[in-house]
Amino acid sequence: MDDVAADPSHPRYQSLLLRHRLEQAEQQGLLAGSAMIAHGRGEAYDYLLGEQTIASAHLATLYAVDALKRASRPVLSLNGNAVALAGEALLKLAEHLDCPVEINIFYRTPERMKALLGRLEAIKSELNLEVEILGAEPNARIPGLKGPRAKCTQEGIIDADVILVPLEDGDRCEALVAMGKTVIVIDLNPLSRSAKMGSITIVDELTRVAQNMLELVQHEQIFEPESPYNNDENLAEALRHIVMRFNA
Amino acid sequence: MDDVAADPSHPRYQSLLLRHRLEQAEQQGLLAGSAMIAHGRGEAYDYLLGEQTIASAHLATLYAVDALKRASRPVLSLNGNAVALAGEALLKLAEHLDCPVEINIFYRTPERMKALLGRLEAIKSELNLEVEILGAEPNARIPGLKGPRAKCTQEGIIDADVILVPLEDGDRCEALVAMGKTVIVIDLNPLSRSAKMGSITIVDELTRVAQNMLELVQHEQIFEPESPYNNDENLAEALRHIVMRFNA
Repeated sequence: MDDVAADPSHPRYQSLLLRHRLEQAEQQGLLAGSAMIAHGRGEAYDYLLGEQTIASAHLATLYAVDALKRASRPVLSLNGNAVALAGEALLKLAEHLDCPVEINIFYRTPERMKALLGRLEAIKSELNLEVEILGAEPNARIPGLKGPRAKCTQEGIIDADVILVPLEDGDRCEALVAMGKTVIVIDLNPLSRSAKMGSITIVDELTRVAQNMLELVQHEQIFEPESPYNNDENLAEALRHIVMRFNA
Repeated sequence: MDDVAADPSHPRYQSLLLRHRLEQAEQQGLLAGSAMIAHGRGEAYDYLLGEQTIASAHLATLYAVDALKRASRPVLSLNGNAVALAGEALLKLAEHLDCPVEINIFYRTPERMKALLGRLEAIKSELNLEVEILGAEPNARIPGLKGPRAKCTQEGIIDADVILVPLEDGDRCEALVAMGKTVIVIDLNPLSRSAKMGSITIVDELTRVAQNMLELVQHEQIFEPESPYNNDENLAEALRHIVMRFNA
């Protein structure tokens, strides 16, 4: 790690820490070739947000946790970047929700799957968590997708009614929505296809979202929103926030 | 390369082609660990611009080429991403300007220097260009910078009056400006420190800038601007363009 990243008071500490996690994950074979470029795009959009959870993202997170809590069969879909950046928090979240996680990657190879399963199992045993980890033995396909990226499990993604997809590809997001699921997207670009496709899109950085969800999931109160959730309106709010910052 | 990248009619062809160049360069040891993340940030900002040369960028490019043509000792400073993405066009530009290029990298290692020099020499011989390539034997330091990132050559960067720095780090940009040079920055983020520091900042994607410069440098006409160049105003124009696109 760069020297600066060892110092939590450094203004770029959080950003450098995430980069460091990704670099480690790359060395461990967890990531696809495009992972670093995707992370860089995320950094740019997060910079536009002010590297903070904006109000509309907080609202979307409230609705998302509520949907996950009320779900009959929730599942957290994890790809390489999600495991690298927020594997611990997402496994803890799954334990609180009493739901499985499923490794579901776009560029599926046996080596990457093995590395990702190994990483999640290591976290599980280190934190002493009770979470089912799916994806090792896919037995179903997401309808409408071609090739290895369609592979998934019946008991996980196929049978889920609410699915969290952090950093998801647009095609796959669309396919999941077409299956009638409530799809919770985490995406820093409010204009991305995934963001527009999602049922509930949280325009925020994954590790912040995971922490916020972990706090919210432990609240006992029932969430009683004043109005039904409107994803288009929520995305428009995120855009307004960015535009306001530019104009300032 | 992905299949789509082999087809120039694919809407993402140009973007995929640049990624492919970077992936090759990484395999050849040309890039620093942060290169892919930096490229991803660039992709995000270019998306906001509409992946096009906007009017204010074209204007800045006109002033920049004029400054390079009028300079007594121009130099093009090249880092890993610049060589990987636009090595050929930048060497051609240097030949037209009759000026040297200098390899000037932030994370300097003997291996990366060797790989970059080898790549530039290969382009030179393939395209039969007459360009001096500096940087192999640094004999000076940029004042105000610490460590290997300060290393440069007297006959190149130190003695230059006008310097082109594509994709430059903010600290180094500031140090070059402090030396009294005309610093031409190419940066897709109009809010970056380099962008704000530069004497002339071109908010545009490097390969498009290199092509535009190559065309402009071959024009014989004298550039007679109606008003002196104002970098702050030019950056504000780029921001207005982005905000307008968001509002649309």
